[in-house]
Amino acid sequence: MSKELGLSVKKSDFNEWYLEVIKKAELADQSPIEGCIIFTPYSYAIWENIQSYLDKRIKETGHLNVYFPLFIPESFLKKEAEHFSGFVPECAWVTEGGSSKLSEKLAIRPTSETIMYYTFSKWIRSHRDLPLLINQWCNIVRWETKAAKPFLRTREFLWQEGHTAHSTKEEADEEVMKMLNIYKELVETQLAIPVILGIKTESEKFKGALYTTTLEAMMPDGKALQMGTSHNLGQNFSKPFNITFLDKDKKKKHVWQTSWGVSTRMIGALVMIHGDDKGLILPPKIAPYQVVIIPIYKENTKQMVFEKCEKIKKEVEKEKISVLLDKRDQYTPGFKFNEWELKGVPIRIEIGPIDIEKKQITIVRRDKREKIIIKETEIEKIKNVLEEMQKDLFNKAKKFFDEHTFIAKNFKEFKDIMKNKKGFIKACWCGSEKCEEMIKKETTTTIICVPFEKENVFSNCVYCGEKAKEVVFFAKTY
Amino acid sequence: MSKELGLSVKKSDFNEWYLEVIKKAELADQSPIEGCIIFTPYSYAIWENIQSYLDKRIKETGHLNVYFPLFIPESFLKKEAEHFSGFVPECAWVTEGGSSKLSEKLAIRPTSETIMYYTFSKWIRSHRDLPLLINQWCNIVRWETKAAKPFLRTREFLWQEGHTAHSTKEEADEEVMKMLNIYKELVETQLAIPVILGIKTESEKFKGALYTTTLEAMMPDGKALQMGTSHNLGQNFSKPFNITFLDKDKKKKHVWQTSWGVSTRMIGALVMIHGDDKGLILPPKIAPYQVVIIPIYKENTKQMVFEKCEKIKKEVEKEKISVLLDKRDQYTPGFKFNEWELKGVPIRIEIGPIDIEKKQITIVRRDKREKIIIKETEIEKIKNVLEEMQKDLFNKAKKFFDEHTFIAKNFKEFKDIMKNKKGFIKACWCGSEKCEEMIKKETTTTIICVPFEKENVFSNCVYCGEKAKEVVFFAKTY
Repeated sequence: MSKELGLSVKKSDFNEWYLEVIKKAELADQSPIEGCIIFTPYSYAIWENIQSYLDKRIKETGHLNVYFPLFIPESFLKKEAEHFSGFVPECAWVTEGGSSKLSEKLAIRPTSETIMYYTFSKWIRSHRDLPLLINQWCNIVRWETKAAKPFLRTREFLWQEGHTAHSTKEEADEEVMKMLNIYKELVETQLAIPVILGIKTESEKFKGALYTTTLEAMMPDGKALQMGTSHNLGQNFSKPFNITFLDKDKKKKHVWQTSWGVSTRMIGALVMIHGDDKGLILPPKIAPYQVVIIPIYKENTKQMVFEKCEKIKKEVEKEKISVLLDKRDQYTPGFKFNEWELKGVPIRIEIGPIDIEKKQITIVRRDKREKIIIKETEIEKIKNVLEEMQKDLFNKAKKFFDEHTFIAKNFKEFKDIMKNKKGFIKACWCGSEKCEEMIKKETTTTIICVPFEKENVFSNCVYCGEKAKEVVFFAKTY
Repeated sequence: MSKELGLSVKKSDFNEWYLEVIKKAELADQSPIEGCIIFTPYSYAIWENIQSYLDKRIKETGHLNVYFPLFIPESFLKKEAEHFSGFVPECAWVTEGGSSKLSEKLAIRPTSETIMYYTFSKWIRSHRDLPLLINQWCNIVRWETKAAKPFLRTREFLWQEGHTAHSTKEEADEEVMKMLNIYKELVETQLAIPVILGIKTESEKFKGALYTTTLEAMMPDGKALQMGTSHNLGQNFSKPFNITFLDKDKKKKHVWQTSWGVSTRMIGALVMIHGDDKGLILPPKIAPYQVVIIPIYKENTKQMVFEKCEKIKKEVEKEKISVLLDKRDQYTPGFKFNEWELKGVPIRIEIGPIDIEKKQITIVRRDKREKIIIKETEIEKIKNVLEEMQKDLFNKAKKFFDEHTFIAKNFKEFKDIMKNKKGFIKACWCGSEKCEEMIKKETTTTIICVPFEKENVFSNCVYCGEKAKEVVFFAKTY
């Protein structure tokens, strides 16, 4: 892989920087298929760490993993009208199998509601079959025409999609929030990204949902990135797909459903939020390597230094820290420092003859880039440093989030903020779709969510000036 | 899900039994897409156990996981002529994206050599970039026209595909055998299925390979099932895809490549080999639940029994044994016994008032179906029982394998065996493709492999009667 090191653009040149850091840190490679990327070992390992945390949480809460076919008959997508109109324009269609034309064209799943719910109608008979709680890890295809952006917008991506069925709306409501909160924990504690939780407006909800809840993160350019969504589908699918159960009261009823998902898009957020002019900065909890050891040696000290490095490596591993010893002979320590900084490894350990003599090791935290000397008998301290770094990254992102959340009491203030600042705007809204639409038209900002954490209305509607219903968040979006 | 219990056919009625046990044990469900199945929670959990073991081994041996696009341009498949002719008749083709016709049709990957190797040619420059060792877990589509059979032949299945590039043929040879041996360990120690290892003949090898090595298992009907393959691709792909490196001697050379894979097909083998008239029998090492606890109670003893069951459950879990406590009130213990037997859970624990009084628990091994009473202070013994069962299942399958491997010294003997017995035939072969082809034509048996474990030639060629070159295995195949 390419070994031209160092970024040629600064993070202030944000869009360029994003593409360059992904390329040079070897997170993704262009593929020969327009709009699709290759997940290289480095980004795939991040995804595996995300999966490992989330899969455990999904199973702990009683969900079972399954795998449904990749293909969805066109007629299935048509069964829920809104869903159909939302997804059909973005489907990739299989029309030939072998040398034969198919009698019905098949979409590559843009999401699996329809194929799963067809089957749910066979699986569910009685209230005893409920709740049905399943999850699927898979690839998804949405044939978007907008320009691709690695991780954020690609025609194929990886995700998990949870699908559940319940006896009552209340149980479905509860499930929606349970999973949204698990996502919040994933994003905040593992990815070190602060989010606001709330409900999407009618016009922004998932096509086919009763309502959509969301986690929204703020990117360094002030735009909002949706980190995950959890939908209450109501009975919108159970009616056309005829998913009914015999309830305890002997009455036949339609189930209430939820679906929820997060995707490899989160890797894009990670890159944008934590990176700097030197490259990636990975939160320790999801970094493929938490520590890299770099030996500093000349020919006559090589053996001694390597032996010490191997010994330290074993001790670091004992602390359940993932570690790489970079023994490549053809590169200088300086080159390696740059490379691993670019790749955002949380901690670098340097070991040379002087360290060995003084029975010490030198550690450098990727984000602060300051050297700390610890005794070679104090390896367990590295764990603390990783924990501090994890917290610091979150706090730094939280500070940015707070400092870039502005209040607009009227549309003039709103437009001034949009013009001069980057970030989210908190403003009061009357609740009408018309105001929402006009604001979008005039400022290209969207209501990213109606937050769960309610605040007192502090002005009239930011657009029409009529009585406001609630405080909502506006932002430009990815 | 369906709760009509008990198999209506015996294993002797093998094909019917296979379909029924899969349905009733809820391993797979029919999907609305012809030729595709739904992996239910139970079979997916088996797959996850297989993945968990194998992924660890793949990583330990230095391979990194990646994810490449699902789509392969038609022109890529055409680059290696044999590969093209082998796979194109079975491709599902995407011809439309959104509402537009694509300028080049895209195959859904039937295997990823071509899309990966296009990229390898960009990743590999120097001998320092070698070996390149990657692996991918993904879905695969082969639009077969033969009738589908759950797990064994479906249009979509799940697998892992390893792809590596090396400086020399010798290194590639070594890699091929390393991975084949890891597969052998997976299959023999986890799935409890004995296999023979060997090389495929020219006519049976992977389309595009220099040679193909294979693991072959014997099914109860005597047919061979290929459990996995590991190919040395030679320079057959590196030449058309122009994957070159600058070697230490400053010369530009084409890399030597391997690819290897195992799939969800293995689940089919598992079902066939170990199951009996009562249903599945799952080897403890890959069973989703190793133990199921069934409380035996009346209304007045319910609380006491449940409490004891919960306590025993915790103790079993302490031994790192996966366990399910079946507290469903609407089913009788007898119903539950049948259900979990059908589902092949290795050990059932029964706990009722008498057991509690006697401070004992009753355990029943799924394969032997005999009751063993152990003291409630001896929970750790369950671990031994599971280990014994794992071994016994392998030994039983091995015995079947050995007893159904026959020797044929001439074609009359060969045909007699094929007519009267089920199993593999060991016979001597002159090495000519013509004899191989004629035997296939006359008896529908194939050379499943030229075994690595060489035996002395004991007769002339079983077909032509000329001097034999080697001893090979023949069988009917799935």
